[in-house]
Amino acid sequence: MSDFRLEHDSLGTVKVPKDAAWGAQTERSRQNFKSGDLMPYPVITALLQIKKAAATVNTTFNELDAAKGALIANTVDQLLSSDHRADFPLVVYQTGSGTQTNMNVNEVIVHYAAKNQPELPLSPNDDVNHAQSSNDTFPAAMMIAAYQACQQLLPVLQQLITTFKQKQNEFATTVKIGRTHLQDATPLTVGQEISGWVSALEHDHQYLQQNMATLLELPLGGTAVGTGLNAPVGFDQKIVATLAAAYQIPFVVAPNKFQGLAHHSGLNLVHGCLRTLASDLLKIGNDIRFLASGPRAGYGELIIPANEPGSSIMPGKVNPTQVEALTMVVARIMGNDTTLNFAASQGNFEMNVYKPIIIAAFLESSDLLTTTIDAFDDKLVQGLQINAPRMQALVENSLMLVTALTPHIGYEASAKIAQTAQQQNLTLRQAALNSGLVTAAEFTRWVDPAAMTQPQQ
Amino acid sequence: MSDFRLEHDSLGTVKVPKDAAWGAQTERSRQNFKSGDLMPYPVITALLQIKKAAATVNTTFNELDAAKGALIANTVDQLLSSDHRADFPLVVYQTGSGTQTNMNVNEVIVHYAAKNQPELPLSPNDDVNHAQSSNDTFPAAMMIAAYQACQQLLPVLQQLITTFKQKQNEFATTVKIGRTHLQDATPLTVGQEISGWVSALEHDHQYLQQNMATLLELPLGGTAVGTGLNAPVGFDQKIVATLAAAYQIPFVVAPNKFQGLAHHSGLNLVHGCLRTLASDLLKIGNDIRFLASGPRAGYGELIIPANEPGSSIMPGKVNPTQVEALTMVVARIMGNDTTLNFAASQGNFEMNVYKPIIIAAFLESSDLLTTTIDAFDDKLVQGLQINAPRMQALVENSLMLVTALTPHIGYEASAKIAQTAQQQNLTLRQAALNSGLVTAAEFTRWVDPAAMTQPQQ
Amino acid sequence: MSDFRLEHDSLGTVKVPKDAAWGAQTERSRQNFKSGDLMPYPVITALLQIKKAAATVNTTFNELDAAKGALIANTVDQLLSSDHRADFPLVVYQTGSGTQTNMNVNEVIVHYAAKNQPELPLSPNDDVNHAQSSNDTFPAAMMIAAYQACQQLLPVLQQLITTFKQKQNEFATTVKIGRTHLQDATPLTVGQEISGWVSALEHDHQYLQQNMATLLELPLGGTAVGTGLNAPVGFDQKIVATLAAAYQIPFVVAPNKFQGLAHHSGLNLVHGCLRTLASDLLKIGNDIRFLASGPRAGYGELIIPANEPGSSIMPGKVNPTQVEALTMVVARIMGNDTTLNFAASQGNFEMNVYKPIIIAAFLESSDLLTTTIDAFDDKLVQGLQINAPRMQALVENSLMLVTALTPHIGYEASAKIAQTAQQQNLTLRQAALNSGLVTAAEFTRWVDPAAMTQPQQ
Amino acid sequence: MSDFRLEHDSLGTVKVPKDAAWGAQTERSRQNFKSGDLMPYPVITALLQIKKAAATVNTTFNELDAAKGALIANTVDQLLSSDHRADFPLVVYQTGSGTQTNMNVNEVIVHYAAKNQPELPLSPNDDVNHAQSSNDTFPAAMMIAAYQACQQLLPVLQQLITTFKQKQNEFATTVKIGRTHLQDATPLTVGQEISGWVSALEHDHQYLQQNMATLLELPLGGTAVGTGLNAPVGFDQKIVATLAAAYQIPFVVAPNKFQGLAHHSGLNLVHGCLRTLASDLLKIGNDIRFLASGPRAGYGELIIPANEPGSSIMPGKVNPTQVEALTMVVARIMGNDTTLNFAASQGNFEMNVYKPIIIAAFLESSDLLTTTIDAFDDKLVQGLQINAPRMQALVENSLMLVTALTPHIGYEASAKIAQTAQQQNLTLRQAALNSGLVTAAEFTRWVDPAAMTQPQQ
Repeated sequence: MSDFRLEHDSLGTVKVPKDAAWGAQTERSRQNFKSGDLMPYPVITALLQIKKAAATVNTTFNELDAAKGALIANTVDQLLSSDHRADFPLVVYQTGSGTQTNMNVNEVIVHYAAKNQPELPLSPNDDVNHAQSSNDTFPAAMMIAAYQACQQLLPVLQQLITTFKQKQNEFATTVKIGRTHLQDATPLTVGQEISGWVSALEHDHQYLQQNMATLLELPLGGTAVGTGLNAPVGFDQKIVATLAAAYQIPFVVAPNKFQGLAHHSGLNLVHGCLRTLASDLLKIGNDIRFLASGPRAGYGELIIPANEPGSSIMPGKVNPTQVEALTMVVARIMGNDTTLNFAASQGNFEMNVYKPIIIAAFLESSDLLTTTIDAFDDKLVQGLQINAPRMQALVENSLMLVTALTPHIGYEASAKIAQTAQQQNLTLRQAALNSGLVTAAEFTRWVDPAAMTQPQQ
Repeated sequence: MSDFRLEHDSLGTVKVPKDAAWGAQTERSRQNFKSGDLMPYPVITALLQIKKAAATVNTTFNELDAAKGALIANTVDQLLSSDHRADFPLVVYQTGSGTQTNMNVNEVIVHYAAKNQPELPLSPNDDVNHAQSSNDTFPAAMMIAAYQACQQLLPVLQQLITTFKQKQNEFATTVKIGRTHLQDATPLTVGQEISGWVSALEHDHQYLQQNMATLLELPLGGTAVGTGLNAPVGFDQKIVATLAAAYQIPFVVAPNKFQGLAHHSGLNLVHGCLRTLASDLLKIGNDIRFLASGPRAGYGELIIPANEPGSSIMPGKVNPTQVEALTMVVARIMGNDTTLNFAASQGNFEMNVYKPIIIAAFLESSDLLTTTIDAFDDKLVQGLQINAPRMQALVENSLMLVTALTPHIGYEASAKIAQTAQQQNLTLRQAALNSGLVTAAEFTRWVDPAAMTQPQQ
Repeated sequence: MSDFRLEHDSLGTVKVPKDAAWGAQTERSRQNFKSGDLMPYPVITALLQIKKAAATVNTTFNELDAAKGALIANTVDQLLSSDHRADFPLVVYQTGSGTQTNMNVNEVIVHYAAKNQPELPLSPNDDVNHAQSSNDTFPAAMMIAAYQACQQLLPVLQQLITTFKQKQNEFATTVKIGRTHLQDATPLTVGQEISGWVSALEHDHQYLQQNMATLLELPLGGTAVGTGLNAPVGFDQKIVATLAAAYQIPFVVAPNKFQGLAHHSGLNLVHGCLRTLASDLLKIGNDIRFLASGPRAGYGELIIPANEPGSSIMPGKVNPTQVEALTMVVARIMGNDTTLNFAASQGNFEMNVYKPIIIAAFLESSDLLTTTIDAFDDKLVQGLQINAPRMQALVENSLMLVTALTPHIGYEASAKIAQTAQQQNLTLRQAALNSGLVTAAEFTRWVDPAAMTQPQQ
Repeated sequence: MSDFRLEHDSLGTVKVPKDAAWGAQTERSRQNFKSGDLMPYPVITALLQIKKAAATVNTTFNELDAAKGALIANTVDQLLSSDHRADFPLVVYQTGSGTQTNMNVNEVIVHYAAKNQPELPLSPNDDVNHAQSSNDTFPAAMMIAAYQACQQLLPVLQQLITTFKQKQNEFATTVKIGRTHLQDATPLTVGQEISGWVSALEHDHQYLQQNMATLLELPLGGTAVGTGLNAPVGFDQKIVATLAAAYQIPFVVAPNKFQGLAHHSGLNLVHGCLRTLASDLLKIGNDIRFLASGPRAGYGELIIPANEPGSSIMPGKVNPTQVEALTMVVARIMGNDTTLNFAASQGNFEMNVYKPIIIAAFLESSDLLTTTIDAFDDKLVQGLQINAPRMQALVENSLMLVTALTPHIGYEASAKIAQTAQQQNLTLRQAALNSGLVTAAEFTRWVDPAAMTQPQQ
């Protein structure tokens, strides 16, 4: 019993752990909701920044005593300066507006402020939450956290692009067999193949960069239903400007706060960019692991770093573990895309009550991409090498090169040579020489795989 | 037996229906693949345009006889001038490169050209398909068809936005109760509520408009694997410029043709915009049908047109059928989003062999949106009316207005009035007057729902 | 103007095409809803059967004149005896209860009955729809159509299993290299590998067979909201028994009609079986196309039938087109699974208004599976052959066999031999002989890949 | 530096934290993979049980020294008797076979065994992993963990069903208005409405119970690729029997181990049951929160417990927070369903390398359902009450009751009364009396809502 203190709210008395920094409303939620992960910390820090900005702006509007405003701001700075995860014990699967996390933040600020200035008691509602509602602060925190997460992802993605570009240049002239329908096709260079991956990732980088601007729209000043009741005129512009300055991110007031509270189209759209990136990563990852398959009974064209023992006895068995982690992340992001789009569709009237799962899914996707792409780049792509002799052998062994003979000996004779090669299991060169229609010198001159990797000059 | 003619290809002889405009390869596919819908016709027409443009460009490169070029171009014009659906009998679930549809188009052009100029026989491969491969023409046709589909969707979406804006203006000053968590909340105007829908749709319109530019990238000139083998240098620029002129759409050569053949990120991204729009439409549709629920035992705030008898005997029962059709479309688009993203992720090496299902899913989504939004606008939104007395009654009956009393009689007295109203099932006005703390005149002056729909002046 | 006749309903007058078999309500829907595919015909035929059964049962309850009952029954028989697709022009994206299709059926029966017996006019509502509501007939028709679709799928799936089992037996003793993480692993027989596919499909067959029983529950007799208002007591048992007899399928009265109208869990569950099957088919299809990759630069272990020319000049290029069609079907089914589960979740109160899209998605999935599996079996699996020399060469070339040396020469010496083989690009046999630790005879005796395909005896 | 010890494996030396219970392979994974959640602990405990069972069985086969077998078994018992989460630091996004977690378990057992009996050193590979491979132990652990999770879910689901049944009985005779298309419909009892929810959940309970049997199939004895190489004949039966006895769960040897390693159809199927349940919970949750909407401007038929202050000033505002948490869980499960089905489809050859994400998604879904349903039952459903006067008022005010007049005064007169009621905003009773066609006594006798909740007697 002595491990608790008693706190009160409009529903009555609540036993709160004695040392907890939170108050009655947080404790109720902690007792009523115990499923799933904690609310992502970037949402907490964004709410803290909003509280600080609100305190400052409320002071300028004379809505809040200057001393109180300073106390709130200082307390927030203190909370942001070290890890306070333990003070925010609420989970994702709580009320769908994130109200309880907003109150958790209010209560924790009041708690630490009381330690700093016991003589200046704050009210979590009237002071810290002044001119706000969880209905506008929480979606604003979602946008801030999501935008920051994209900011973290972009340079990591760019680093992967850069590494692939280095490989593209490094292997620019090595000719390899192309494959369409998984069947042997006309040749291309390794550099060309990698350029396709680079281009895909560059497209995805641009998609994200272009679309994340929609996350800049903060519906602050909307308060409970979007009308701005209980906030002074101009509060929205000032608080968003304050946050833009604090973050050095060009946040803007949401053009329509009703949309900002009840729709989460921006997060839905941008997660569409994340899943498009994930989808391309799956293709690239599959290409790499198949091209590195072997060592003897696979494609065997690529050599990937051996980060862990693949087999204690058999050398050369290098499992593509980084690809496996990456593609499992892709599977998760596909699921998060379903979750987020569904959740975004389920708003009613002035509210969407799936906010916590929306932001949790978004941040899980972006964070998994950031960390996994980083490891994929560092531990696999940077060490990617080619098995040039294998590539050359496959090209030389290929029957696709027969197309290079047609201008010289005609379609029919060429086809016959290819058929003979296939039936007798010969190389095209051997079959061509056997036909008596082509000399060795001619074959070498005419059948030039490198020339086949470009349009006709 | 006499109903067939015999055609030959490299695998042997094929019986083709005597009157069919197609040839051996189409017929093989027709026999081997019988599942699902026909390849969407916009893909066929885009391929026809590509064939015409290729013929013209091949002529300028002296890769094709001028007479043949003109014959192909004229035949395409003829085919485009009337409905030739019956000449293109192949289905979506065929080879994953769309090769058979590309050959279908080549064969049909040859067939009609032979009627036009029997003395100038064309080869489907050497002439009509010259400097092309289905591997580059089919993805280019996908992009063209998808871009056009977006062009058709945008004005229809804009029309819906315009209609909602008219309603927003029409009901700009009518105050209604807000709802968050489905619970009564502070008031807003009908115009404000509708403005949230407008804003959501405007966001979606802008998302689509901004992102559809990625569909302008045509990988023509890439031929079989992206290298451009068998196409002359510069072919890509010329054919794309020709198509851009023909369509009056600023198509560009894909910046990387390997990406263009093996990834379909652009279509994936833009379908992400379609599903974001769909998700918002679900929210709006749900709002409308719930607000129109009744006539006696529902929210009853909105009145929607009666397009069909809801009940043969009971007046006032108006089923929101347009919303139901629209939201079933949303369900389909959510599925198409899963399909398309999955399919886009499954490329291997120089090819993605899910092309037909990707474009079929995309076009189904965009076309369903275009036609359903059009009907939703025409048959429901334009006729949308409000039940103003009901709205007013709900506002007056609401307990949420109690917040307006607090500046005058204090928080505690206000809360007590609200509690009394709730317990005794009184209106707030009645309970306030009963309390003796507020006069009728004061209540009227202080409790002004319209004033509560804005920030503090 | 003369192409139309005028019909009347409670909303007024409707112009109906002169020769149309439908009436006013169908025509309204035809005008108001123009998006998407036609309502699947199996739903129409199931509704026709329900109308016949209802007429019969209503007669026994003296709720319907015997002559009228007979007229309805005979007219339904006539309609079922030939294709009447053109009489049912309504689309999937209509009212979400399927009411308009139910009325379409009622109206068409009345129309043809009037031709048969003009002297005995029927009312679509009072006679044909007697003791029914679209709210109970339509979900019952969904269940009937879905159950029948599963009945069609099961034998086709069984045929594929049988074919694979034949292949399993045919190649029971051919040893091939195993692959895990796409890397060479210990050997297994082709029969064993195929047995994994067989087992997966057998599991899926059993899953479907076991779960489709839930589709037997018909909510007939529930009428408008599930209470059975306006149906006589016992109507439910009798109509379901009549249908069970007609179909020779053991349909039962839904244990709870409120669930039957507002939830579609059964269809959701069974589609989960379809998507599980689809998922396994993707794995099997991918295995086949990768193992058939080549002809020179791929795995090259399997040989699939050449159904279409893969290349006009290059022999041996056989595109796995049946796999491509099949896997595109899988992509569609994944999407339908999203659609159906979403739609099933969106019921409200006594109704789910996503019925048409639910059944359309279900039947699309089941029908695509039936037809595509049939073609896959017929045109690919039955002709599947192995490249035994290639398999043998890969096994012999493999380093994985080194594990067989360890009991004889120890772990360390074995590992060294494998390393040497890998570094010097030798076969394991060559490296072992080079080591001087193993004789040729010993190697042959000790390294027995076939023995490695079983547990230790 | 002194915080580490050096460990060795085939790739070289690894620095391992001095006090870590794990070894080199775990440490490599810990360094190489840092994204996402920890491997779920139930997978760890299942692997521990497998290690113990394997040790016992290996002893009986004389494959393992009896003392070593006992040491492993005792050490596992010790590890299972308290929380050892900290000894298993590896994450989900690692190698896709779960190999590193299998090695983590092997290494930790060796570590603690060395403390118990330093004189009897164990090898993680040769002793603890004897006759096993991560390729068979990990999927077996997945099945065990998933089966147990279902066992935990079922009674919680049953408890919810029981609570709803109590409510069904409690409110069996209260008549309320039905709603279809969200529009007023004919009446039913509250008990009937709740019976639909009960039936849906009972269906879902049965679906899960029936299908989870497929999770009993353990592919133990398959070792690396499914052939059982390096396991003695009969090992599979004995180890599965040992586990069945230990768990008191009727596990069986997987009928085909190749399927068991490369397909995860069983988990896919059973997750289909979880998502079907989730989908029904969404419908039920939505019904409850809409029916509890208000207090003044909503449906207002249900009263839910006030677990947290909904508003500090406005009484009666009770946010349906338990429903919100539950429905966010549903959104997550929909995503997990996409993730799991995708991952299950991506096997290749003898392996599926998405195992960790498959089991992580499955367990997240089942655990979230278990904990959230428990709270939903406890904190909402058990306290669910009805607002009987509101229900009665809505029924009496309804126009749907007009159908009860038709047998007495005919269709046309009845429809006119209803129209008048609607136009003049009267109750049906008032309009009927006004018409002069019905007396008050007759109205009371004829219009009996309770009688309308059943079929005609």
